[in-house]
Amino acid sequence: MFRRRHLVAATALAACLIAAPALADQGKSTATPTSQELLAKSSPAEWRRPDPSNLLVMQLPAGRVLIELAPDFTPLHAANIRTLVRQHYFDDLAIVRVQDNFVTQWDDPAGDDGGDPKKIRSLGKAKTKLPPEFTRPIDPKLPWTALPDGDVYAPQVGFSEGFPVARDPASGQEWLTHCYGMVGVGRDNGPETGNGSALYAVIGQAPRRLDRNLAVIGRVLEGMPLLSGLPRGTGPMGFYTAPAQRTAIESVQLAVDLPPAQRPSLEVLRTDSPTFTALIEAKRNRRDAFYAVPAGKVDLCDIDVPVRTAQATTSARP
Amino acid sequence: MFRRRHLVAATALAACLIAAPALADQGKSTATPTSQELLAKSSPAEWRRPDPSNLLVMQLPAGRVLIELAPDFTPLHAANIRTLVRQHYFDDLAIVRVQDNFVTQWDDPAGDDGGDPKKIRSLGKAKTKLPPEFTRPIDPKLPWTALPDGDVYAPQVGFSEGFPVARDPASGQEWLTHCYGMVGVGRDNGPETGNGSALYAVIGQAPRRLDRNLAVIGRVLEGMPLLSGLPRGTGPMGFYTAPAQRTAIESVQLAVDLPPAQRPSLEVLRTDSPTFTALIEAKRNRRDAFYAVPAGKVDLCDIDVPVRTAQATTSARP
Repeated sequence: MFRRRHLVAATALAACLIAAPALADQGKSTATPTSQELLAKSSPAEWRRPDPSNLLVMQLPAGRVLIELAPDFTPLHAANIRTLVRQHYFDDLAIVRVQDNFVTQWDDPAGDDGGDPKKIRSLGKAKTKLPPEFTRPIDPKLPWTALPDGDVYAPQVGFSEGFPVARDPASGQEWLTHCYGMVGVGRDNGPETGNGSALYAVIGQAPRRLDRNLAVIGRVLEGMPLLSGLPRGTGPMGFYTAPAQRTAIESVQLAVDLPPAQRPSLEVLRTDSPTFTALIEAKRNRRDAFYAVPAGKVDLCDIDVPVRTAQATTSARP
Repeated sequence: MFRRRHLVAATALAACLIAAPALADQGKSTATPTSQELLAKSSPAEWRRPDPSNLLVMQLPAGRVLIELAPDFTPLHAANIRTLVRQHYFDDLAIVRVQDNFVTQWDDPAGDDGGDPKKIRSLGKAKTKLPPEFTRPIDPKLPWTALPDGDVYAPQVGFSEGFPVARDPASGQEWLTHCYGMVGVGRDNGPETGNGSALYAVIGQAPRRLDRNLAVIGRVLEGMPLLSGLPRGTGPMGFYTAPAQRTAIESVQLAVDLPPAQRPSLEVLRTDSPTFTALIEAKRNRRDAFYAVPAGKVDLCDIDVPVRTAQATTSARP
């Protein structure tokens, strides 16, 4: 009785870390390759290891969360977050808020409403205010893989350096978008009041109205379930109402600061690779035994950039 | 120090059950009313109480989940689900699968891979197969509130009877869409193999590629955090790997079968009401102190239809 498995098999592309075995009767009527088949045929050169200077390792009691920074889009925020991390700013802080269908947020609880202002942790050498970096001028030198189906919110959308991006040729600006798993910088009303000491990850339907209003600094590559599968806060806006409800952050480190053997070993599919383009097409038009009607379209935020454990490099001549 | 609260306040429309107090300094530069202001000014006639024959009450250990059926879109599935519920089919079954950024699913674990086929619960008088009901002919008599900003997947989108709907005038068909909180019927490869004994709720970015491929039978009106805030399953496709990881379903009942005093008392904003139209516009163009750039657009699945506790009816002459 495969009833339940089939619904899932038909949608395996939704998973970020894909290692699902092909089901026995899957693909009988396949006219296009499955995502698994495409990934299996990809070449090593189509994968990249994230720069360890851009990789945050957040250790939670239940496991680790890996976040790749996007310094080509938000360089000042990336630098400030690196400064905070190297001061161990986030160690022993907490996940303070989980708002359903919206965001999971972590910061210094002492600075939140109801916290003790006298206990607010110093930002040390990090800046307390930063230029917004909500958008940046379109850089024709950055790789760009355009999506073909349009977008409700922006004139153009696609992927650049592994991240979902929107572009507006009229203004000449581009920006990272608030898709599931993207990480942004909390701020006060003033556009320059964000500094990276309060971060949030999107855990629901993409709140694209936030685009161009907040600095998006990267993407969760591993560990989303540790952020999305938490009990929702019952206070206003999903804040937890008691300290015991929070999830402790044991530490946040930069991968480059770890001994090489301890650095996360993972690879991200290049979004300017032929395999990624083929994956987009496979997602637009599912033609396996489950799908009666292929969508023929795909939304920017419904595409996950594949991540995998780094493969051992095999030399052609041992 | 409102830094963290402001990010939230600016996005309060994302919440389904809205009762957030206005912040002291919110709205200073408001050019359009906030959602809270709009809801506060709504008239009683703009709200409806769901028909108790269409309201499922699912009791979990942590609380209740309320699901409104949509018999105008999937009548045969609604009828079959009512039959299953009245046989107490779901009582003591379980949430068996939580796949991150995708769905939470509940069904008879004995019928899943690895279950004991000898223990599969009988469907009793319910049908084991149903016509698909993936789409239906557009009914001009159903209320229709169109959205103005287009859609990646369908020619037209809007709301009908409280549900998000897509329409294709060329084929003359319309269908409920896989937005966050919508509930669908799991099935095997055959389009007629769904019967309502395995249900799923969307807990991530809208998987719109499922539209027209599965029967969508309704929407969660209350209790989404009880479905979305669960630990993700670590087995293939998010299935739990051990029975102890599952969440037990204590019971599923129809509200109409409960004594009147025990029926859930809630109201849903009519999607053909002036207040709902005003909410859409407010969501398209946020102009409070937080937003630097209003989106000017809104996606179908980024609009939540407000739900509230039923208000006491006050008579004009006591």
